[in-house]
Amino acid sequence: VARVAGVAQSTVSRALRDDARVSAATRKRVRRLATDLGYVPSRRGRSLSTRATGQVAVVVADLGNPFYAEAIEHLHAAFDERERRVVVLTDPLETTPLEPERLLDGSVDGAVLTTTLLTSDLPRELAARGLPVVQLNRAVDGDVADACVTENVAGGRAAAEELVRLGHTAVGAIFGPADTSTGRDREVGFRSGMAAAGIELAPVHVRRGPFAYATGHRALGQMLAAPRRPTAVFCANDVVAIGALNAARALGVAVPGELTVFGFDDIAMASWDVFALSTVRQDLAAMARTAASMLCDRIADPAGLPRRVTLPAAVVLRGSHAGPLVG
Amino acid sequence: VARVAGVAQSTVSRALRDDARVSAATRKRVRRLATDLGYVPSRRGRSLSTRATGQVAVVVADLGNPFYAEAIEHLHAAFDERERRVVVLTDPLETTPLEPERLLDGSVDGAVLTTTLLTSDLPRELAARGLPVVQLNRAVDGDVADACVTENVAGGRAAAEELVRLGHTAVGAIFGPADTSTGRDREVGFRSGMAAAGIELAPVHVRRGPFAYATGHRALGQMLAAPRRPTAVFCANDVVAIGALNAARALGVAVPGELTVFGFDDIAMASWDVFALSTVRQDLAAMARTAASMLCDRIADPAGLPRRVTLPAAVVLRGSHAGPLVG
Repeated sequence: VARVAGVAQSTVSRALRDDARVSAATRKRVRRLATDLGYVPSRRGRSLSTRATGQVAVVVADLGNPFYAEAIEHLHAAFDERERRVVVLTDPLETTPLEPERLLDGSVDGAVLTTTLLTSDLPRELAARGLPVVQLNRAVDGDVADACVTENVAGGRAAAEELVRLGHTAVGAIFGPADTSTGRDREVGFRSGMAAAGIELAPVHVRRGPFAYATGHRALGQMLAAPRRPTAVFCANDVVAIGALNAARALGVAVPGELTVFGFDDIAMASWDVFALSTVRQDLAAMARTAASMLCDRIADPAGLPRRVTLPAAVVLRGSHAGPLVG
Repeated sequence: VARVAGVAQSTVSRALRDDARVSAATRKRVRRLATDLGYVPSRRGRSLSTRATGQVAVVVADLGNPFYAEAIEHLHAAFDERERRVVVLTDPLETTPLEPERLLDGSVDGAVLTTTLLTSDLPRELAARGLPVVQLNRAVDGDVADACVTENVAGGRAAAEELVRLGHTAVGAIFGPADTSTGRDREVGFRSGMAAAGIELAPVHVRRGPFAYATGHRALGQMLAAPRRPTAVFCANDVVAIGALNAARALGVAVPGELTVFGFDDIAMASWDVFALSTVRQDLAAMARTAASMLCDRIADPAGLPRRVTLPAAVVLRGSHAGPLVG
């Protein structure tokens, strides 16, 4: 473009940026020429010189869980305010794990990781190789990289205390994967709350599975088929709880009359009229805003010790809880 | 790395690719040096020379609609088989529209567009500027770029015929945005099916809004508050229908006893026990596979006339339909 226009390359760059140091006539001429020649200002070219792309990655595994769709929306808004673009990379753990190289190829300035397993080396490896990262919602133990999470232990315990307060003693649980911090910590909290009240979880009333609709649907179906049914069930997250609510509907078991169901997350769906799910709320908007701000800080200042921010959890009572039926 | 190792740059590239033309000892030495020096093979560097990134973009607007989450999963699987990586770009139409430059900066070899409005210039502009694109689900009219869509007119008509067959005459509709091909075509089909049976849609029973839960919830609430209620309602998509089902629940209106509700899409949620939504099915897996294959063809052969593939729609009868109550 510079050659055809007979001006310096820097003049072309300025003209395309609408820089006032270039006369209006030249700006117009350069822009028309650029269009005619099919010239596109290259982010790659730009980033090779400035080493900043203005782009951040959000790594998610399971878009089928509305939690992640909501997280992406909040992150999008938060990064938008900071004039950063978001690309979403899906990390379908069960097939091929995400290669660190996809994040280290210079296409992004940093990454928000939402899929971290307790055994995952990715946060440490990325941080060690110089990529700013923030773990959101799930994190590995220790101080290997920034993290923004919820008080999962306290939240699980609060759910247990609510069930105890309602008078339930035949209590079941559908826990999440033990290799995630959220699955493990909610279980630890829930068990500690039940133990504090001297209530034992019967092994036949304890199930475990991925954070998925099918997990809750199948597990509750099995529990309700057993001779001694629980009167209340705590679920590892809302999607699992919604699976359980659907299984109860399919089997004609009334919620909350015959069965109390508790979730965790407070996704939008939890408040739908057909569910009215009582749950433990994570402030996902605050978590996303905090993670975005932490990532931008880390990009600006890559050195410094990793930080961990832990946000509170709060019980939300809707319509899926009641006291046990007096037999 | 080449300088420190004392070998040619091409030898380093080959060694890192595990190319057998480089001796095992040199490969090992180069790899160890690369690790020590913190060298990462740059996709940007690679793509500047080969002009292929192995990466494709999927542009979505509304991750809150599970339809798009499901589409991404299917596209991911289809591109995985073709050894292409997917990045997801969200295009929140209501705020800042996606800039074509984000797709034209050389970071992707092509794009699947799922958010096209009838008025959108993006498919034409991208195709004209040399980026292979395929429109999925929604498309602009005319042959400006490849498209893979469903028989929306026929599907809307089939839903109308089903309601007529059930004996409904007081029929309502919650249509989608008129500036989307899906919204417009489903409406055209549904209206033509009702007109063929000589049934008029009362203006008070016709509403319109975005493809969102809130649209269905609000619109059905308004219809049910009116003195003369419809006995059946066709909804522009499943998410709208699920909003309507929740409003019916909130108002104590029995589905299907007092009200038939019909959706469009057949997302996974439509088959949940609490909804058992009767709907018009799009074969989203086939649509995604076809779009992925069309995009790879277009990348391989950018010339050639645009193609449009139209897949069939099929009525799926579950539990949200019945004949009208005899008054």
